[in-house]
Amino acid sequence: MRVRYYKNMERTLIKDSINKVGKEVLLKGWVNTRRDHGKIVFIDLRDRTGIVQVVAGPDLVEGLHSEDVIYVTGLVKARPEKLVNPKLSTGTVEVEAKKVELVSKAAELPFDMGQETLQLELPTLLDNRALTFRHPKVRAIFKVQEVIIDAFRRALIAKDFMEFQSPSIIPSIPEGGAEVFEVKYFEHTAFLAQSPQLYKSLLVSAFERVFSVNQVFRAEPSVTTSHIAEFTSLDAEMGFIDSWEEVRDMAEYTIKYIFDEIQKKCSQELALFGAVIPEVSQKIPHLKLREAQQIIFERTKRDCRQEKDLAPEDEREICKWATEKHHSELVFISHYPTKYRPFYTYPDDEDPQFNQGFDLLGRGREWLTGGRRIHDYQTLVQHAKEWKVDPAKIKTYLQAFEYGMPPLGGFAFGAERITMFVLGLANIREASMFPRDMERVDVHL
Amino acid sequence: MRVRYYKNMERTLIKDSINKVGKEVLLKGWVNTRRDHGKIVFIDLRDRTGIVQVVAGPDLVEGLHSEDVIYVTGLVKARPEKLVNPKLSTGTVEVEAKKVELVSKAAELPFDMGQETLQLELPTLLDNRALTFRHPKVRAIFKVQEVIIDAFRRALIAKDFMEFQSPSIIPSIPEGGAEVFEVKYFEHTAFLAQSPQLYKSLLVSAFERVFSVNQVFRAEPSVTTSHIAEFTSLDAEMGFIDSWEEVRDMAEYTIKYIFDEIQKKCSQELALFGAVIPEVSQKIPHLKLREAQQIIFERTKRDCRQEKDLAPEDEREICKWATEKHHSELVFISHYPTKYRPFYTYPDDEDPQFNQGFDLLGRGREWLTGGRRIHDYQTLVQHAKEWKVDPAKIKTYLQAFEYGMPPLGGFAFGAERITMFVLGLANIREASMFPRDMERVDVHL
Repeated sequence: MRVRYYKNMERTLIKDSINKVGKEVLLKGWVNTRRDHGKIVFIDLRDRTGIVQVVAGPDLVEGLHSEDVIYVTGLVKARPEKLVNPKLSTGTVEVEAKKVELVSKAAELPFDMGQETLQLELPTLLDNRALTFRHPKVRAIFKVQEVIIDAFRRALIAKDFMEFQSPSIIPSIPEGGAEVFEVKYFEHTAFLAQSPQLYKSLLVSAFERVFSVNQVFRAEPSVTTSHIAEFTSLDAEMGFIDSWEEVRDMAEYTIKYIFDEIQKKCSQELALFGAVIPEVSQKIPHLKLREAQQIIFERTKRDCRQEKDLAPEDEREICKWATEKHHSELVFISHYPTKYRPFYTYPDDEDPQFNQGFDLLGRGREWLTGGRRIHDYQTLVQHAKEWKVDPAKIKTYLQAFEYGMPPLGGFAFGAERITMFVLGLANIREASMFPRDMERVDVHL
Repeated sequence: MRVRYYKNMERTLIKDSINKVGKEVLLKGWVNTRRDHGKIVFIDLRDRTGIVQVVAGPDLVEGLHSEDVIYVTGLVKARPEKLVNPKLSTGTVEVEAKKVELVSKAAELPFDMGQETLQLELPTLLDNRALTFRHPKVRAIFKVQEVIIDAFRRALIAKDFMEFQSPSIIPSIPEGGAEVFEVKYFEHTAFLAQSPQLYKSLLVSAFERVFSVNQVFRAEPSVTTSHIAEFTSLDAEMGFIDSWEEVRDMAEYTIKYIFDEIQKKCSQELALFGAVIPEVSQKIPHLKLREAQQIIFERTKRDCRQEKDLAPEDEREICKWATEKHHSELVFISHYPTKYRPFYTYPDDEDPQFNQGFDLLGRGREWLTGGRRIHDYQTLVQHAKEWKVDPAKIKTYLQAFEYGMPPLGGFAFGAERITMFVLGLANIREASMFPRDMERVDVHL
């Protein structure tokens, strides 16, 4: 079985096997499944492009089982019409094996990887991460995530935004907060960034429009289905705006661009999850917080009209309203009470009790957050003090405003959350390749 | 000066002003420089797309100085031929100001930002990072860096690599090493990743070809011109290789792709630094370490033939050789002594004392490092033990090999280093927006 017979042949990717009927090919991949039928063995062979059926005599594939890495040379044959397998994109062909080389032997699997959906508890799934990545539905999650991230970049590059890399190690935690990780930094204490917020804002003073894709860190001391300690933040910030609505519109453009790309590139992946892209209207509806609360009150008699934010049940209700009234699963909520948003959020000119921050809700959850920021240096310093943020701790950030800053705003969202919401996953950990939480960093702590 | 006169006008980007001769436009930007000539004031106005000369009466621009943010409405006029400014891409026009609105007042600058090259000591440059970003030569550095990173991604996407986000927080430091930052992780101790190496390798077992662009962390306890504590690592890894040369060729393709993109998109930026893309031959020359050392010995009589690595002077000499003999400023060196490379590096089949790791040198420096990795589980575990790496600490990584791993290899390089080498910068800190070292995290510690 260890003949180096294939050496002079070029590898054929499995998806291309359908174009090679009558030809001898070299396939490389993993044994997905094996079915023995007496003198014939059927091997579903898998590579990154798909699965194809290999037919072999028992001698050729003696001892092979799932996840073994093998190189197969064989003849591609068209299947008779009644034997075409509609479940495989290569279902019109099969490969008659001539030689099989075992390249890497897999241990016995701890569970059946051949199920359509892995029937595993989450800890088992994650304890076996390196293995479970190979399952089609798990791989699909990260394909969708890759498309989301790349679409985010393409959307903003098309609008003349510049990409930057935001630092993870930061010198201080200006806004206080217990949910920050401490780093032993040489002889000092440093911290892990919770967001690129201050960096992206300061860069507007030089580059006008910037975006970043970076890991950020939240020491959330709770275990929920929608929080992880490290995630991929997609951040954008833009200067020379005339109003906060320009920022909202850029966010709307970006999320719709992402949806379009998922639709175009991930139809198979969506199908695996029975998922559909959210329905959005031509223009995503928008409500001020107090308007939303009034609507919720009228619809449910639940009076949240004085609350500073929407509770989860309110978020679900207002999304229901948007879907019913506007055929949009997404809805913008803006104008939260000023004192409950960060110090840099821009108070509304007409009613400074509320500010020009906004959230994008969808399917009952928060997809994105953004807003206009204060650009006037004196006002910003004043706000910082009122919010108990020490200006000395945000010197680099404030410097950008001290030397001339245009009106600005921006938005951010988490790649894992969007992946989770689009595919309808039950737990955000499924949407993170290597989720970190209180109890796990790769392995259980 | 605070008339909201422009409200109904759309902003014209400065680069587009040359197409608006005879029209009234609204420009938004920063005062780059101001020159007073009695009844006429010349303002060079700057936005992200360029600089244009604005002509105004003294009343209109009273008190304005460099870095003030202003909105200017005015008439675009063609300049008489003899007054065309060849130094500006908008040099054929000037804008006669009708209204000027001050949007954000800048403090007095601590130094002259109008110099062609900022004459500042590095600490001053970095202490004023938010301000110095606005200088054309500083902005150019990060434009080039953006192109490098995006080209890296495009090159690999074209070869069917999948992008992933590598985690920064890791559970243990399997290879030991003092140069790792500790994180206080809830009730535990975790660490910051020095490289995505183990993650990218394990992902090959599911995705075959992967790449990542991530911040990585090195607690280097020294202050040199080429080390920083946090940098952007560009990593790639691929499976089903037949030989280490396939990995080297992919690295060569990638770096050449990056050079081509810089050439195409950054001619102005290169010109600012008087920089040229390295000369590379059709095929970058390659030497084994011992061959390189023999050549160095013959050329210099300096005998380094038993050394485990090339010293800086050796790197310079072998680059000189490659340039002279092969018209290539880049050269690959491979086959370092096995015991001095990481445990996963693949020993050469013919001479296992040396391994199939390689470096790409250029202009006397190391640009990139890579190699083939061991894919056999038993061998890998054996090596780990010999290298004093506890297999229990790399469980997730080893799992990928336990369940069938194809032959694999990969490479990595730092975005800041490539930027530095291409532009000929004296210190890597100039190529990092927010450099972190023993003494600095944004501000001096």
